[in-house]
Amino acid sequence: MSGGGAPAEVRVTLPAWVGEVVDWARPYPDDEARMRLAIALARENVERGTGGPFGAAVFEDGTGRLVSVGVNRVVPLHNCTLHAEMVAFMLAQAAAGSHTLGGDGRPAHALATSCDPCAMCLGATLWSGVRRVLCGATRDDAALLRFDEGPVFASSWTYLRRRGLAVRRGVLRDEAVRVFDRYRALGGAVYNG
Amino acid sequence: MSGGGAPAEVRVTLPAWVGEVVDWARPYPDDEARMRLAIALARENVERGTGGPFGAAVFEDGTGRLVSVGVNRVVPLHNCTLHAEMVAFMLAQAAAGSHTLGGDGRPAHALATSCDPCAMCLGATLWSGVRRVLCGATRDDAALLRFDEGPVFASSWTYLRRRGLAVRRGVLRDEAVRVFDRYRALGGAVYNG
Repeated sequence: MSGGGAPAEVRVTLPAWVGEVVDWARPYPDDEARMRLAIALARENVERGTGGPFGAAVFEDGTGRLVSVGVNRVVPLHNCTLHAEMVAFMLAQAAAGSHTLGGDGRPAHALATSCDPCAMCLGATLWSGVRRVLCGATRDDAALLRFDEGPVFASSWTYLRRRGLAVRRGVLRDEAVRVFDRYRALGGAVYNG
Repeated sequence: MSGGGAPAEVRVTLPAWVGEVVDWARPYPDDEARMRLAIALARENVERGTGGPFGAAVFEDGTGRLVSVGVNRVVPLHNCTLHAEMVAFMLAQAAAGSHTLGGDGRPAHALATSCDPCAMCLGATLWSGVRRVLCGATRDDAALLRFDEGPVFASSWTYLRRRGLAVRRGVLRDEAVRVFDRYRALGGAVYNG
């Protein structure tokens, strides 16, 4: 891109603390264990000041094997697309060497996200190839923190279900909301477009 | 991320040919000139086999200065999030050193995309900070190629307009559709989740 003002590449990275905090060896057998990890990532992201109050993780749904994690990196990495779910999808697909986690005899994958996905992340969930989605805090909880989740409607969720995705919302919601409370108490940035 | 299966970072890059094809020095004064660039990027991406039949670019809306370009990189980079619009947003924000192209006395920015944005990209458009969106081919045109655009409804566009974004669709639609025809003729991959 000689002559262009924009850089030729963008790097997407996790904060260094993720390596210390995440236990990759253990299985995450049930929805609550998976959500607890997503919320722990959100909480740590707030405490360490490395992004917004959101965490996510991708698992093999049958075995509970942890495949990838993500945290919100929007402000530190100057990139509006780096919501926790997006980072988790990117890293899972890089590990799989494929643009999709579905099809071709792959095991079914599940996403756990500490908050209902915004419009962007809900769309990406469809493209990611995961078969199941677990959400913690709700859109309304995020709105109380003044985060706008964008054009997500009841019909958006229906669209996902019709494409074969299973959805479970409100998993450990209170724990997820406590991370929002902590973010607010610390004066964290709210960065709607 | 020691112990994890997923890599610690993901790189987002443009194909090498972009440097040869894009004229960064000239202004792009009107909507048609901007859309012509987005379509040229889509076409070249098809001819060179470097991704799906979609291109995009971000401009300063007042001066017509080209800020960044994007092409679809989903299959080659193993990353379902790398639609043309997303790549253009990431590179524009990296150049700006900010997670948003809006606010803070910045000039207004416009996105030109060779096809109506999918649900993910429409959400990202809201977070990107651009103030105006130009679209070429339609959702129905993409559907004829068997690309699913996800849960985008009339109310999604209304949501954007209510947040202050101006939208103009169908700009040079026929030219954009010809790139889809060429992609189909070459047997390009259709990669819905």
